[in-house]
Amino acid sequence: MLQSTIFLPTQSAVPTEEISRNGKLLQQAGFVSKLQAGVYSWLPMGLRVLEKISKLIRREHQRIGAEELLMPALQPKALWSETGRWESLKSIMYQWQDKSGHDLGLATTHEEVIVDLLKKSALSYRDLPKALYQIQWKFRNEPRAKSGVIRGREFLMKDLYSFHVSAEDLDQYYAKVHQAYRNIYADIGLKAYLTEASGGTFTKRHSHEFQVISDAGEDKILVCPKCEYAQNLELGGNLKKCPNCGKTLETKKSIEVGNTFIFGDYYGQQMHLKFTDKQGTQQPVYVASYGIGITRLVGAVTEVYSDAKGLVWPKAIAPFQVQLLVLGNQPNLTKRARAFEKTCEKNHLDILLDDRNASPGFKLKDSELIGMPWRVVFSEKRGQKVELTNRQTGKAEILEEKDALAKLLKP
Amino acid sequence: MLQSTIFLPTQSAVPTEEISRNGKLLQQAGFVSKLQAGVYSWLPMGLRVLEKISKLIRREHQRIGAEELLMPALQPKALWSETGRWESLKSIMYQWQDKSGHDLGLATTHEEVIVDLLKKSALSYRDLPKALYQIQWKFRNEPRAKSGVIRGREFLMKDLYSFHVSAEDLDQYYAKVHQAYRNIYADIGLKAYLTEASGGTFTKRHSHEFQVISDAGEDKILVCPKCEYAQNLELGGNLKKCPNCGKTLETKKSIEVGNTFIFGDYYGQQMHLKFTDKQGTQQPVYVASYGIGITRLVGAVTEVYSDAKGLVWPKAIAPFQVQLLVLGNQPNLTKRARAFEKTCEKNHLDILLDDRNASPGFKLKDSELIGMPWRVVFSEKRGQKVELTNRQTGKAEILEEKDALAKLLKP
Repeated sequence: MLQSTIFLPTQSAVPTEEISRNGKLLQQAGFVSKLQAGVYSWLPMGLRVLEKISKLIRREHQRIGAEELLMPALQPKALWSETGRWESLKSIMYQWQDKSGHDLGLATTHEEVIVDLLKKSALSYRDLPKALYQIQWKFRNEPRAKSGVIRGREFLMKDLYSFHVSAEDLDQYYAKVHQAYRNIYADIGLKAYLTEASGGTFTKRHSHEFQVISDAGEDKILVCPKCEYAQNLELGGNLKKCPNCGKTLETKKSIEVGNTFIFGDYYGQQMHLKFTDKQGTQQPVYVASYGIGITRLVGAVTEVYSDAKGLVWPKAIAPFQVQLLVLGNQPNLTKRARAFEKTCEKNHLDILLDDRNASPGFKLKDSELIGMPWRVVFSEKRGQKVELTNRQTGKAEILEEKDALAKLLKP
Repeated sequence: MLQSTIFLPTQSAVPTEEISRNGKLLQQAGFVSKLQAGVYSWLPMGLRVLEKISKLIRREHQRIGAEELLMPALQPKALWSETGRWESLKSIMYQWQDKSGHDLGLATTHEEVIVDLLKKSALSYRDLPKALYQIQWKFRNEPRAKSGVIRGREFLMKDLYSFHVSAEDLDQYYAKVHQAYRNIYADIGLKAYLTEASGGTFTKRHSHEFQVISDAGEDKILVCPKCEYAQNLELGGNLKKCPNCGKTLETKKSIEVGNTFIFGDYYGQQMHLKFTDKQGTQQPVYVASYGIGITRLVGAVTEVYSDAKGLVWPKAIAPFQVQLLVLGNQPNLTKRARAFEKTCEKNHLDILLDDRNASPGFKLKDSELIGMPWRVVFSEKRGQKVELTNRQTGKAEILEEKDALAKLLKP
């Protein structure tokens, strides 16, 4: 794609109204635009990142037999009153009355909706287990929306719900989802610790988080440096030694990038979600839920991977894998770059070609700000060769075009 | 995909709480599930339809150089006060105050947000024209949410905004968008009339709608039976003869499936969206906006194409192009059907295979209810042959597998 045609409003100055590093950088690089605290527009480059993460997530969820659907944001009070959460979530759930006096809320999560939905379909043991997920915008009245896209009032989330005939069956699937999550984080290039956590109101004992170590994090976890056991500090805080291997635990700041909850038969009992077993008896369904904040994940990647020059995108979720830069106005350079672009695209690489009429210094700096994994420079100085730079290592090489291409295609 | 593994809760009884035909059928066939009036969950089959329509829309928008982005639903009052629409949209825009006393609204449309967003990027004549669109859920407090997914309180919409240096440049692009819309409707198989319309507050003279004739429609249009000129009845109503060819106009009920608005320099002036021209002078930007209600389009297709037996999906947006039915329990039939499925999928056909253990009568009826364009039946009765049925014409043929495949692959 030609950079002259894409809406990518980079700024030379760091936005002053943002506090967080990720909020500043993502705006300066033209990936997002702030509408109000905790509420951002995702510009074409940012949207490409969200789509790449969503694609990874879909692939892993299909592998564990989960099906995609889409539930609404507009919530009726009655449903949430069945579990008492209309009241207990009052402080973070946007709630209001419409003109006709109906109580409405915006979804912070979807357990109530999906349980209600499944109740309508008269489940039998043959229908279970069942796993359903969505990728959807959610809303929370965050009192402190100062962490950029990490703590949004409107945020994109993948939420999965699984339904089982027994606690044992649920436990087995719960482990499968953890493995799917591990695959997703590994693909992105994030080291995420599976952390024992407090589950809030319903599920004090059975909840886990995936935490990425970062000074920008709002959480604190205890981590074992040897076996990677981790526990959220809010769970106990008195633990000094690793319960697995005895090593002294370390305290680290971290960003939550996923969470999983075992509800057991809570919803089966409270909202009367039952299935008919082989004997024809009604039994409560066992439920678990699992979340990954997608916009938050973009914030975590930005905090962990950016440097003084700008963003540094991991290959798997970069909006484009390679940026081509044409320095100078020689038509021949542009011609070569366009031909190189075509060859790359035939090989399934996403290419951004900076064809803009601007100074070499400006283009090089802008390129570091937006942070594609690879940069290929076409310039008079390099003759028939190109300069290939790895954004993460900063390492640059002067290569023949064909050798540069071979490097780009290496897995 | 195996039907035994998909979440597709068809119902034998017609839902009684729904008034509209599309709401009844889409629920009975397990495509959507109603949460409250005008608010639906989109189950796996329904979501597949939304994605197929979105893909068609994206293809046509890329062809006219439009770029995709994503804007938020949560709206601050201040922005909407700049155009006076916080007040003028009060009756249909969900508005409330959060705990800290901030006025919030949910987006009914995004002109204010995108104009504000572009203002921040200091436009020059080199940046124009520019066209940006999104596919996103919107909210409207519809007083009468009784038309199923045609008039949702939460609905999926494609909205495009274009920005120009002059009224002439805008007019040229406006015509291009009309052609893109024509292509989209033609692909889906809907006959949509380009209709002169009233544009509401800002743009009385310059607004068009695309209208599909249907008795389920809430609009009335005057149509010329000869040259296909059309005008919304609310525009004048006194017109008897076609202004193009003089034929007597006919009055028809219709469903609006798209609309386009020329705002001219209104936003340039009112919200101070300016660009720097070649002489370095600030000039107002010319703006137009264009919408297609995607969930509404699903409703329109249902109203136009369904019959007494159920849904009838046009090929381009059917969740699966072909449904394979195995009647009877012979393992050999299932084996043949699975092999046929594989061959079809290699040829890029989406296949749903009804492998469920149920009676032939039930499976045949269920198959007509969900309405895939083609059905292929494997049964003992047909021996090595299969029965191929076209859902739209109802025509059935007994064919060799290879001849059935050849028919399915015909464009």
